Amino acid sequence: MSKGRVCLAYSGGLDTSTILKWLINEDYEVVAFLADVGQEEDFVEVEKKAMALGAKKMIIQNLQKQFVEEIVHSAIQCNAIYEDRYLLGTSLARPIIARAQVKAAEENNCQYLSHGCTGKGNDQVRFELAFAACNPSLKVIAPWRMPEFISKFQGRQDLLKYAAENNIPVSSSPKAPWSMDDNLVHCSYEAGVLEDPDHTPPKELWTRTLDPIDAPNKPYEFSIYFEKGIPVKVITEDKKEVTDSLDLFKLLNKIGHDNGVGRVDIVENRFIGLKSRGCYDTPGLTIARLAHIDLEGLVMDSKVRELRDQFVTQAWSRQLYNGMYFSPEREFVEIALVASQKNVTGVVRMAVYRGNTFVLGRSSDASNLYSQEDASMDSLEGFSPEDTTGFIAIQAIRLKKYGLQKQKDGESLSSK
Amino acid sequence: MSKGRVCLAYSGGLDTSTILKWLINEDYEVVAFLADVGQEEDFVEVEKKAMALGAKKMIIQNLQKQFVEEIVHSAIQCNAIYEDRYLLGTSLARPIIARAQVKAAEENNCQYLSHGCTGKGNDQVRFELAFAACNPSLKVIAPWRMPEFISKFQGRQDLLKYAAENNIPVSSSPKAPWSMDDNLVHCSYEAGVLEDPDHTPPKELWTRTLDPIDAPNKPYEFSIYFEKGIPVKVITEDKKEVTDSLDLFKLLNKIGHDNGVGRVDIVENRFIGLKSRGCYDTPGLTIARLAHIDLEGLVMDSKVRELRDQFVTQAWSRQLYNGMYFSPEREFVEIALVASQKNVTGVVRMAVYRGNTFVLGRSSDASNLYSQEDASMDSLEGFSPEDTTGFIAIQAIRLKKYGLQKQKDGESLSSK
Amino acid sequence: MSKGRVCLAYSGGLDTSTILKWLINEDYEVVAFLADVGQEEDFVEVEKKAMALGAKKMIIQNLQKQFVEEIVHSAIQCNAIYEDRYLLGTSLARPIIARAQVKAAEENNCQYLSHGCTGKGNDQVRFELAFAACNPSLKVIAPWRMPEFISKFQGRQDLLKYAAENNIPVSSSPKAPWSMDDNLVHCSYEAGVLEDPDHTPPKELWTRTLDPIDAPNKPYEFSIYFEKGIPVKVITEDKKEVTDSLDLFKLLNKIGHDNGVGRVDIVENRFIGLKSRGCYDTPGLTIARLAHIDLEGLVMDSKVRELRDQFVTQAWSRQLYNGMYFSPEREFVEIALVASQKNVTGVVRMAVYRGNTFVLGRSSDASNLYSQEDASMDSLEGFSPEDTTGFIAIQAIRLKKYGLQKQKDGESLSSK
Amino acid sequence: MSKGRVCLAYSGGLDTSTILKWLINEDYEVVAFLADVGQEEDFVEVEKKAMALGAKKMIIQNLQKQFVEEIVHSAIQCNAIYEDRYLLGTSLARPIIARAQVKAAEENNCQYLSHGCTGKGNDQVRFELAFAACNPSLKVIAPWRMPEFISKFQGRQDLLKYAAENNIPVSSSPKAPWSMDDNLVHCSYEAGVLEDPDHTPPKELWTRTLDPIDAPNKPYEFSIYFEKGIPVKVITEDKKEVTDSLDLFKLLNKIGHDNGVGRVDIVENRFIGLKSRGCYDTPGLTIARLAHIDLEGLVMDSKVRELRDQFVTQAWSRQLYNGMYFSPEREFVEIALVASQKNVTGVVRMAVYRGNTFVLGRSSDASNLYSQEDASMDSLEGFSPEDTTGFIAIQAIRLKKYGLQKQKDGESLSSK
Repeated sequence: MSKGRVCLAYSGGLDTSTILKWLINEDYEVVAFLADVGQEEDFVEVEKKAMALGAKKMIIQNLQKQFVEEIVHSAIQCNAIYEDRYLLGTSLARPIIARAQVKAAEENNCQYLSHGCTGKGNDQVRFELAFAACNPSLKVIAPWRMPEFISKFQGRQDLLKYAAENNIPVSSSPKAPWSMDDNLVHCSYEAGVLEDPDHTPPKELWTRTLDPIDAPNKPYEFSIYFEKGIPVKVITEDKKEVTDSLDLFKLLNKIGHDNGVGRVDIVENRFIGLKSRGCYDTPGLTIARLAHIDLEGLVMDSKVRELRDQFVTQAWSRQLYNGMYFSPEREFVEIALVASQKNVTGVVRMAVYRGNTFVLGRSSDASNLYSQEDASMDSLEGFSPEDTTGFIAIQAIRLKKYGLQKQKDGESLSSK
Repeated sequence: MSKGRVCLAYSGGLDTSTILKWLINEDYEVVAFLADVGQEEDFVEVEKKAMALGAKKMIIQNLQKQFVEEIVHSAIQCNAIYEDRYLLGTSLARPIIARAQVKAAEENNCQYLSHGCTGKGNDQVRFELAFAACNPSLKVIAPWRMPEFISKFQGRQDLLKYAAENNIPVSSSPKAPWSMDDNLVHCSYEAGVLEDPDHTPPKELWTRTLDPIDAPNKPYEFSIYFEKGIPVKVITEDKKEVTDSLDLFKLLNKIGHDNGVGRVDIVENRFIGLKSRGCYDTPGLTIARLAHIDLEGLVMDSKVRELRDQFVTQAWSRQLYNGMYFSPEREFVEIALVASQKNVTGVVRMAVYRGNTFVLGRSSDASNLYSQEDASMDSLEGFSPEDTTGFIAIQAIRLKKYGLQKQKDGESLSSK
Repeated sequence: MSKGRVCLAYSGGLDTSTILKWLINEDYEVVAFLADVGQEEDFVEVEKKAMALGAKKMIIQNLQKQFVEEIVHSAIQCNAIYEDRYLLGTSLARPIIARAQVKAAEENNCQYLSHGCTGKGNDQVRFELAFAACNPSLKVIAPWRMPEFISKFQGRQDLLKYAAENNIPVSSSPKAPWSMDDNLVHCSYEAGVLEDPDHTPPKELWTRTLDPIDAPNKPYEFSIYFEKGIPVKVITEDKKEVTDSLDLFKLLNKIGHDNGVGRVDIVENRFIGLKSRGCYDTPGLTIARLAHIDLEGLVMDSKVRELRDQFVTQAWSRQLYNGMYFSPEREFVEIALVASQKNVTGVVRMAVYRGNTFVLGRSSDASNLYSQEDASMDSLEGFSPEDTTGFIAIQAIRLKKYGLQKQKDGESLSSK
Repeated sequence: MSKGRVCLAYSGGLDTSTILKWLINEDYEVVAFLADVGQEEDFVEVEKKAMALGAKKMIIQNLQKQFVEEIVHSAIQCNAIYEDRYLLGTSLARPIIARAQVKAAEENNCQYLSHGCTGKGNDQVRFELAFAACNPSLKVIAPWRMPEFISKFQGRQDLLKYAAENNIPVSSSPKAPWSMDDNLVHCSYEAGVLEDPDHTPPKELWTRTLDPIDAPNKPYEFSIYFEKGIPVKVITEDKKEVTDSLDLFKLLNKIGHDNGVGRVDIVENRFIGLKSRGCYDTPGLTIARLAHIDLEGLVMDSKVRELRDQFVTQAWSRQLYNGMYFSPEREFVEIALVASQKNVTGVVRMAVYRGNTFVLGRSSDASNLYSQEDASMDSLEGFSPEDTTGFIAIQAIRLKKYGLQKQKDGESLSSK
């Protein structure tokens, strides 16, 4: 008799194929689920494989547009970044995937959700916290944290042996000496030879960006139009004009790819208290983020920006990294984020060249904050230089007291 | 009879030469002061000119090493950055210059300090706040904020006329259509044609970096060694090894220059409530900052980093930008900064290539935080995957309540 | 011929009466303006006096309800406090008064706004920044910062002399040896004998609260009902029930007054770089703030609260203190504030007794976050204690590394 | 044969007596450990009981002075508070107790540490994280999270039955209908009837403070002297003078107790994602904290205070609450904390009266920041009121643009 129905996140790889079979062997019924968030995948083959292995059903959903409009746009609006370097590519996709998997489970009367994430990584946390919020009553089967599973499958050899015994087809192409995860936003590379943080990623590792040295030897120019912090149009030097949200992001990806933009290689702090090394190539988001930051310089009030930088950007980025997208605090922070963007409307002209992204200029009709007249060092209209004397004098009150105290303490600030 | 003695920050240019002469014509005695903080300058010519114009004395001080060791090192340690883009080049030099000028004034019995900063910029604030703290009893003469001065000199023509009348030599080379300020760290370009934020800086503007397209078509590799967050050694692919603090920073500048690293073009928020457009090329600090951030990834505790990023980096950067170097709050924040760096010791291997800076690898003996063993997805030593189940379950308590409340409110999180 | 029309904030006191007369003597036409924000005042007398002194018009507006609903409610929602002690009473009223004065100026064709604030205080800044935002084209006349005015009126004697010469009626009651400012929220006491921060405020100073020792010797109980963070109903032990926003706040003021609640005596940091000593009695807001904080404990998510405390409460309070109510950043923060309050609905039962405010209990139907079942130490339903083992183990990863590093460094944490 | 040696935190109560016996019955050797951190306890009886039950040894250590000097002083220096209300009494003692227990385990060759904390509370986390840092190699036995233990002891009846069977003496005095934990700083009350957050704590609950209504009907005055933020002397109105750190804190406790100072009743957010209701009476620390905050008003620079409030106070308090005392981040924050206190030297005169603590005055020779001369509204020395005009004008630049934009958008700020 069946122990129940499991909705399994299934990628067609050796790990999740093994889990699919193992669940069936453990008397579960399995509904396989795969989200298309823009990764490289032969979806037809995955479906065939799932059904061949005994899945009751294989659900494949294209969530690319949802991904861009619900999450990537917010990431652009808040200049999201983790630990100063990582643009959060993997983390951004997780909430969209997890929510769709929960929905698939609900629609197919599953009592369980399952996934093939390892027991040391961030992704298990991101998936399961999203599951918990999206449907608190569904239970989770996480084989890579179950003693009976991990004792059975202690290494790749055990998986291959099980595959052979259970007619699980195994790809003949040799496995790369690292793990990869890709979606519309980026591809990540970690583990394997990359576990040595001093091991330089080989040239062939990067899949989403040309090596800058192989990119065209001339800058490529284009303009990004923003409305309320969201990119709404791109026009390129060869007169391509794109406005559809998904097409636009794919175009930025292509521009970034062709010109080698968006590679990072870091050691980061995982949520669960370990450090790990990751390499990421993130072409389109790298470009969009820089353009957005630049436009904010032109149109955003300085104090709003200061508060947004210190609180919203940090909080939202960390929430996404830690799998807290479906949480009261992310919902709270997102309201502030949207509020911060109301004037972020304008155009940024850009060029990419062999790994670089340069801003060539920016303009906006939405804000009166930048004024050529005001900024001019020569112009004196509407501004009295004597006012600055008072401004400085008031600021100096406190600093003079500081200087006097230092003198009194024998540590005059000018003595050094 | 003399109204007193003024220590004037004198650069040899038309503005400060006019001020020098004007002060003398107003019956002040003038001691001219010029700090060598690494800018391009013919110091001998400046001295000659000052004396020819009637200065009692010309003081030229080489503060380059002080600049690097007291300020640039702190900037590297805290990954200093203003509004996500500007590495603070001008702001960093101001405290060192201002303090030396105060000291020169004290040693030469001056009652006044003077400078040629305009009345709308940040620099007047930075200088005068530093003056106020370093010696609260000295008075400031800021001609560009004095009605009698600015009504007399309403444009460049007035300055040239005054120069002709007062035998002030004027450079025959045509003035660039923008202002520049340079020091060891960067050169800034603003005003003039750059006041249109959509005007792309022309190729010839940049003085500290080659155009990436003109840089060598091959990566250049080198390693930076850090101790407690401070760069202490650089070894290059051609076996150059430098350890002197000033030589090391100059070498990074040269590497950056030759490979087109460190250009930014932004609209920023000045302290005094205006936005302005600035272009900056900052070769060495761009490289050093990235290397330092990278090393922190390997060796710094995640929670210390989070606090440091949110608190120290933002505060220190803003303090410097706003001219608050000599302040109780900068002194306070600096103590936390130094404390944060105690394990930031190790080597970062890097490559530059046509505008890009890449990290190739990093290593450290100073910290046990990164462990290849721990990080490995395959290894299970010293770590029980079941623990993560509990970790997630506890984190999920709050999120499940959130999801249940949403269900109750008819907004189930899986319904979208 | 008239130099123009001035809308003067007029209180009827010696200072603003002198200014009124002085402006007329300087050939201005004066429209006197007085906002009723709940202060003790004989408004009829003030009007008579203004007209007698030559004002073209006297405008008196009751802004009490606006004050409570637009500002006081926000202060309650964000638990507003400055430097841990001051409930911002004066600062809260300023935006409401300033906006109404601007409107009065506009409606009466005034080109100028004027006030009697001194040149060292916060209030001049608060008024003038609000003026600047509410109507950037109106000019400000601030006599206490005008050399011609302050040289003429160097002390109280000069004011009295001018009053005698210009038929300005002077109150015969002796002036208190300190300054006071009162409104619906509080009365402030500063300057005079209070400038010695070690001088204890005399018993007769306080006007809004009984001395606790003179208050009834028995607790008085009542309940405050909140909706989305705003107090909407109070029911007292003697069955009084109030729901009107203004009546409700006045009732809390009375409860606080009668029971000696809400006195503070502090040295605070003014916006303009000086410290000053202030005493404040703030009966109703002290009670409402405590009740609100208590209810948030029951119904607000912990992470939302943490972000709100660190970000919204600090920023909003400082913005109000510094006169930045009409600013992009306050508008931004207010959106986050409102978002934070969506579940802050419930009842808090309270008692006051001789200076104390105690919470007796609280309840809410709006949130599922507190659960007696969950919280119970005895109950084991829906919660697995083993989960906590994993939670702790994961948190401990980082701390064990810390402990091991300390051991290695010869500073074992258990050695002390 | 013995499974090994356990160092058990033993209080003499029913729970830990049961655990002691159960461990022995499970073939462990038990070294009982009890820290004296100022709680009410008959230490001789506890020791007798432990030995009677079969402990190999009973270690009782007086850690009161260490507690005050290492932790309570830091709490005072940083005005520590959790969620605006809770002074952290229990959390403060945990690190001191845990470290001593680890040391006792090390000295007695124990391989295990054990405690009687429940599986839903904060204390298990605090103890075990401190254990992990202080000695990462010791293992933890937490019976209330072990399935075999909790299934055996499902309620108080099971404990009593086991006690009867194992000759565990049971106190004949009836158990209070809530749990208590006390130390030098406070006594906490939670669980039982208090789990209903609307149940008012009965009068007899509070053990550390008189009911304000029963306290003397006259204020009691005293002065607290601080050096670098630490209380170093108290002089009372009846000429008692105390300087020893422990005696001083006990005196403040007595003053607070006798005058009913320091009760709070809140719903708080536990670290592990649940809300719980707690009542606390914290007499001495409530007084010391208020005095310290008051003195900081007089002597601390405003910007240092702002940074300290936002980062140090929040971070340190949360670290202590969450059991992260022995962590890199607490060590980091503590350095900033100490740095912030260098001028916090002076005297605060205070009075307590029936639940209230009032500041009567304060003075300091350590700082020049407060100046009666400067603060005076009448004095004009050393300060030019015109400067404020410039200060305001510069601040207004941004706000005028905001007001103009609002006008342009048809939402003029004066229109409301």
